[in-house]
Amino acid sequence: MQQIANIPNPVNKRMVIVGGGFAGLQLARKCARHNMQVVLIDRNNYHQFQPLFYQVATAGLEPSSISFPLRKIFHEKNDVHFRMAKLEEVDPQKQMVYTNLGYLEYDYLVLATGVSTNYFGLENVKKNAIPMKSVSEAIYLRNRILENYEKALNETDEEAQQALMNIVIVGGGPTGVELAGALAEMRKYILPKDYPELDFSKMQIYLFEAGDRLLQGMLEKSGEEAYQSLGKMGVQVYLNRPVEDYDGEQIMTKQGENFRAKTLIWTAGVTGRAIQGLPDSVLTRSNRIHVDQYNRIKGYKNVFAIGDIAYMETPQYPNGHPQVAQVAIQQAQHLSKNLVRYERGQDMKLFFYEDRGTMATIGRHRAVADLPLIHLRGFAAWILWLFVHLMAIVGVKNRFFIFINWMWNYITYDQSLRVLIRPKMFRYNKPGE
Amino acid sequence: MQQIANIPNPVNKRMVIVGGGFAGLQLARKCARHNMQVVLIDRNNYHQFQPLFYQVATAGLEPSSISFPLRKIFHEKNDVHFRMAKLEEVDPQKQMVYTNLGYLEYDYLVLATGVSTNYFGLENVKKNAIPMKSVSEAIYLRNRILENYEKALNETDEEAQQALMNIVIVGGGPTGVELAGALAEMRKYILPKDYPELDFSKMQIYLFEAGDRLLQGMLEKSGEEAYQSLGKMGVQVYLNRPVEDYDGEQIMTKQGENFRAKTLIWTAGVTGRAIQGLPDSVLTRSNRIHVDQYNRIKGYKNVFAIGDIAYMETPQYPNGHPQVAQVAIQQAQHLSKNLVRYERGQDMKLFFYEDRGTMATIGRHRAVADLPLIHLRGFAAWILWLFVHLMAIVGVKNRFFIFINWMWNYITYDQSLRVLIRPKMFRYNKPGE
Repeated sequence: MQQIANIPNPVNKRMVIVGGGFAGLQLARKCARHNMQVVLIDRNNYHQFQPLFYQVATAGLEPSSISFPLRKIFHEKNDVHFRMAKLEEVDPQKQMVYTNLGYLEYDYLVLATGVSTNYFGLENVKKNAIPMKSVSEAIYLRNRILENYEKALNETDEEAQQALMNIVIVGGGPTGVELAGALAEMRKYILPKDYPELDFSKMQIYLFEAGDRLLQGMLEKSGEEAYQSLGKMGVQVYLNRPVEDYDGEQIMTKQGENFRAKTLIWTAGVTGRAIQGLPDSVLTRSNRIHVDQYNRIKGYKNVFAIGDIAYMETPQYPNGHPQVAQVAIQQAQHLSKNLVRYERGQDMKLFFYEDRGTMATIGRHRAVADLPLIHLRGFAAWILWLFVHLMAIVGVKNRFFIFINWMWNYITYDQSLRVLIRPKMFRYNKPGE
Repeated sequence: MQQIANIPNPVNKRMVIVGGGFAGLQLARKCARHNMQVVLIDRNNYHQFQPLFYQVATAGLEPSSISFPLRKIFHEKNDVHFRMAKLEEVDPQKQMVYTNLGYLEYDYLVLATGVSTNYFGLENVKKNAIPMKSVSEAIYLRNRILENYEKALNETDEEAQQALMNIVIVGGGPTGVELAGALAEMRKYILPKDYPELDFSKMQIYLFEAGDRLLQGMLEKSGEEAYQSLGKMGVQVYLNRPVEDYDGEQIMTKQGENFRAKTLIWTAGVTGRAIQGLPDSVLTRSNRIHVDQYNRIKGYKNVFAIGDIAYMETPQYPNGHPQVAQVAIQQAQHLSKNLVRYERGQDMKLFFYEDRGTMATIGRHRAVADLPLIHLRGFAAWILWLFVHLMAIVGVKNRFFIFINWMWNYITYDQSLRVLIRPKMFRYNKPGE
């Protein structure tokens, strides 16, 4: 294997960051200012703005509106190198990473690889459900939904037609709640105009949650608000209903109840992944990587993990932090400062997460928010929340344009995004392949 | 086979239109006003705005900006029915069409199926070249270009690296010229910022034309202007160079010259397709369907063909009309009026094409135009030309939004569109499959 080509020797230290999500991207941007060479690796050449996946899936935004080319983000930064590559192995002794493009030596290695969909061992579900953990999965979901309506139009059997129109979401966290709300609005405002021959009073939207309330990571009253709001929008929410099986048409809950839908979106859990070259002992619950309060992987001096993939116990979060963007961003900011201290021979500081608020939207006019400092509601809260997350991704100039673009899409809802672009040259495979 | 479901019996006559391009769409919109039931069939659920494919291919526009859902266009129209379906066979005696969704009886059948890429029997070229006759092909092209730059970055052999950076376009008509200009600008303004480690003075853009000038369908001076402009932009234009072979890396011209590029875009010709159920005798040069001056297929009373697929001889166009949008739109408008006359027992009128001008853009600041009535140049001419074509597609309300969107993209060039969304669940196949 050869070295990754065209990356000069660093003047000082080289940091290799694996993963261009909220954590990796924020870290790359911060460290680029501190005289360190940064090499950022991601299997895609763009950052995916996860909080708005559900908009792509429900045809409210174009994929490119939430996909930010990583190269463009680092236009101005001279010693940040991006490579579209897959991490294959880590050698902490030699301080090397191996990728499909070649190997690279590092002084610091930061794993910010994120998590993927957890099917909890339910093989049938994995085979038939649609996940939503990436832009391409969101596009796939949108295409599937549109295709099913085209098929429903040509279906004379009423039950079969209804199965094509129904949509089931499994997982009552923010993703599931947001999807359910967006689909309810699609059903109310858009679909009847597109498919006047179909009777959308027959379309059922189900949301199944295994636990006893929605939005388990937020305050109880937020979960209750979401439950009420979704109910008013005509979503059928079933609490305490773990889903055990799905064959592509029939859903079965643990209690043995049956529901029928050709579309099942699985947002019920996430899981990390073993990293080749690190022992399995670094993994803990849900395959997250166990780190200390400096985000350092125990037993390794210069290897760190941040974001969703990292599992850190603190007094306030004895079971690890929620896997949300704000944690990722704060850990990245904190680590960049810690490395500056470390380089200067100073002590590093412990990480403490400051919860500045969580939000989940429910349709276009409602949101539930736990915002400790500001009590904003509705549209203003949503705008602020989005903007705060956007700040973590792109520079000032771009934030303006991107934000205008999102607001434009919001205002001109009923966008022409219900196109089923089925690339001629691609054959459909199962998600996850 | 069953009848296509959920289409009511028509009150008067039923027109079946196959193809939602410029011709089919314009005809559907006109006929919808005339008390006729219109059933529009297309294999995609959206209209593809061909004049701007090259913008998608060079990451200047998002696919959805030029894809208009056919259902949305017919929101307000009660007796227009759209089905996403493929035409399988026509039975002119029984006056039936057969599709993958079922059969349908018609009173009038209009074929507006368009044309596809013509490889002139060059099998190697067909296998290795990239066509650009649809939105999904434009996306595929964009992805290929971006992927090659990622690979080039990791290539240490200089010749191999240059082959990855070079781009060849075959076909000097408007499509090829526009692509060449857009790529030249991408090379100048965008790529060096995205890939600072690559030396773009080494990137060659070639344009091969088999004939003796560019833009053969336009005035000679326009072809000459295009030649000069492209030359100034650093595109190497080779006239009188038919391309005979391409193995994925080496291009060979008829003269035996060799060029090296991993990307070859084939825009050198188009061809129609036989329609099952109609005899091959209706086909003429380039597999276009021979029609009389009423766009009627000879020998068939109620079967018509309009747009690119139709071949009509008139005194002014003894070898058929150019396959351009304006011809398609005018034929559609003319046919809709003719059918009204026919229904009233009046004589139909002959079709005469009024050439109101042709335009090809060369980069973002130049265009060549044959505009007999107005002598506009540059940006104003381009705007007018685009708007005229847009009028044919969507209603007044939407034109405004779409146009603002395009202008926004124009102004904010250096858009974040250089994302390589490689859908997880699709495997790459060859274009055309």
